[in-house]
Amino acid sequence: MTLTTAFNFELIHTSSKSRARVGRITTPHGIIDTPNFVGVGTNGTLKALDNETVHEIGLQLMFCNTYHLLLQPGTQVVKEAGGLHKFINRSLPIITDSGGFQVFSLAYGSVADELKSKGTKKQDGHVLKINEEGVLFRSYRDGAKVLLTPETSIAAQKDLGADIIIPFDELPPYHIADLDLKKSLDRTHRWEERSLNAHLENPQQQAMYAVVHGGVHKELRQASCAFLTGLPFDGFAVGGSMGKTKPQMLEMLSFTMPLLPTDKPNHLLGIGDLESIEGCVPLGIDTFDSSYPTRAARHGILLTKSGPLKIMKSENARAFRPPEEDCPCPACRKFSLAYLHHLFKAREMTCMTLATIHNLHFMVDLMRRYRQKILSNEI
Amino acid sequence: MTLTTAFNFELIHTSSKSRARVGRITTPHGIIDTPNFVGVGTNGTLKALDNETVHEIGLQLMFCNTYHLLLQPGTQVVKEAGGLHKFINRSLPIITDSGGFQVFSLAYGSVADELKSKGTKKQDGHVLKINEEGVLFRSYRDGAKVLLTPETSIAAQKDLGADIIIPFDELPPYHIADLDLKKSLDRTHRWEERSLNAHLENPQQQAMYAVVHGGVHKELRQASCAFLTGLPFDGFAVGGSMGKTKPQMLEMLSFTMPLLPTDKPNHLLGIGDLESIEGCVPLGIDTFDSSYPTRAARHGILLTKSGPLKIMKSENARAFRPPEEDCPCPACRKFSLAYLHHLFKAREMTCMTLATIHNLHFMVDLMRRYRQKILSNEI
Repeated sequence: MTLTTAFNFELIHTSSKSRARVGRITTPHGIIDTPNFVGVGTNGTLKALDNETVHEIGLQLMFCNTYHLLLQPGTQVVKEAGGLHKFINRSLPIITDSGGFQVFSLAYGSVADELKSKGTKKQDGHVLKINEEGVLFRSYRDGAKVLLTPETSIAAQKDLGADIIIPFDELPPYHIADLDLKKSLDRTHRWEERSLNAHLENPQQQAMYAVVHGGVHKELRQASCAFLTGLPFDGFAVGGSMGKTKPQMLEMLSFTMPLLPTDKPNHLLGIGDLESIEGCVPLGIDTFDSSYPTRAARHGILLTKSGPLKIMKSENARAFRPPEEDCPCPACRKFSLAYLHHLFKAREMTCMTLATIHNLHFMVDLMRRYRQKILSNEI
Repeated sequence: MTLTTAFNFELIHTSSKSRARVGRITTPHGIIDTPNFVGVGTNGTLKALDNETVHEIGLQLMFCNTYHLLLQPGTQVVKEAGGLHKFINRSLPIITDSGGFQVFSLAYGSVADELKSKGTKKQDGHVLKINEEGVLFRSYRDGAKVLLTPETSIAAQKDLGADIIIPFDELPPYHIADLDLKKSLDRTHRWEERSLNAHLENPQQQAMYAVVHGGVHKELRQASCAFLTGLPFDGFAVGGSMGKTKPQMLEMLSFTMPLLPTDKPNHLLGIGDLESIEGCVPLGIDTFDSSYPTRAARHGILLTKSGPLKIMKSENARAFRPPEEDCPCPACRKFSLAYLHHLFKAREMTCMTLATIHNLHFMVDLMRRYRQKILSNEI
């Protein structure tokens, strides 16, 4: 049962070869063809691009971070502006998260840091209290105390007015005793239900995706799916720890995805590198958000159909050809690889913008090609 | 007598009120309406913009620096690319300088630094030798020795292939004894004549502007104009020290400009702030290059018809209106001042691009308005 009438998911085709599927999500701000890539615009802009350019490239869904927008400019300012779409000048769909990931990264260090053996990089003093109510933390901007709870997170996301919103959850550390993980999962479920209730008091035509937790424990993932699919969420995001390696992540998803309803859309949180997308599309993932393509661009890496291209390599100094020969993106049509190489060597920020345009265009086209392959049962 | 047939200057109107004039320069890559602002694209791009955007904004002349392009990517690379226009994808006119300003800034410190009492910030070890032949210096990129002479500077500018080129000159320190300044001027004149001869051996449809020197000494400026106007240059740039203050600069120019032929275009080197343009247009200056508008943008200052606007001011947090109300530039049409304020606070580089688009658009429009006022004899 979908409670928000403006939101709809249509399953168009499931591959005969795998669980890969082509669908269409309808939101108040338009269509998202799935599977698709979701660009990350933490502060209300994809880094190095403006939203007009992002629109032209055809990115159908943009991910913005409630934590960041809560602290700067404040969700009240965004509300006064007429909502996030109007404030950032984006007419296409937006998804916001709950802020949970960021505040728990402050408390425990991010899972990524932990897995890279950087230890649990607690930012002591930032998180003041974690209890059943929520999390009290200090703003890195002005030192003000901020209370993030299921209710305040949803209120913030109501101010922002994204098409898809996410319930407040706890991100447990990767290294956690099983009993503690179970306790964390139960709390997350209580918080997600509180979030859903707060949302349903004032749906505002927004859709809410639950976040499935449980780490790499099958029984916990199963319990999470069982609990969350019993509530009237509009879709399901997979979050929490996905394991240390890609095979571990794929194993967890192979187990988890069949436990989610096929008539609702799903999203994989924070994963969107090319290898993961290749592995996850056949498992039936609909949308992927990741800052990888835009971050890679700023570090001089172009994504191309023949693999990553390092712009700074000296062999590119005289590459008087488009960065990717048959790419119709504005960067490839207008500029040569040699020129991009030069701009990177000369440390001109223009090259970051051009490389980001290319990589975002590549992702949009990559996902279009995935949809075609699924429709013809090639994957 | 203009030797390069593709280059032409048409004097359209001289104000009845001042020496202010409206003209039209024709080059192999199109028209420059004068007076006009020349955007600085040191490394072959205006900072934070791509050349496609610069074209759309309508910047008619772009200034590139031979010194920087000589060291990165090297003028040979640009030549192999088919010249600077093709390498950087600019179809409109380009002017390059000789590299003299930069190598002498390495040797003596820049005049601007000197006037700010930073002393003569010699970068010892970079400049190895200065003699009648030219300047031997060390590349900051790879430590290679580079010899810049009138002949090598012109050869480099032939490789680049700009529409307008500049002879190699000496930039004397501001604090210099009169006799030394006279000696420097004489050498500059010999170097400019050598540059002109090197140019005329292979004009390549390029035009060459002489650089008038003489600092703030009237008799030296007079001597410089007398010498240089006797040679077949296509136009005249005013360079060297312009004094410590704007009134001093205006006094020097008031004296110097009438000594230049009215049937050839002229250029004021490195000056293009709004106050200077206002003072210099009535003196008959045709073109101004300056990095001020683009640098101001990156520091969060928008140029508007009602004065400079500091984006970061807290009062702009809720300014849900265009940065400049009646401005038709893409940044003002698409985004609010509050959003730009937010992007600057969040340190997103997108805001630098948007502010630069606005400021460049402002300059293009400002100069159009100056031309209208001159045509109606208002200034």
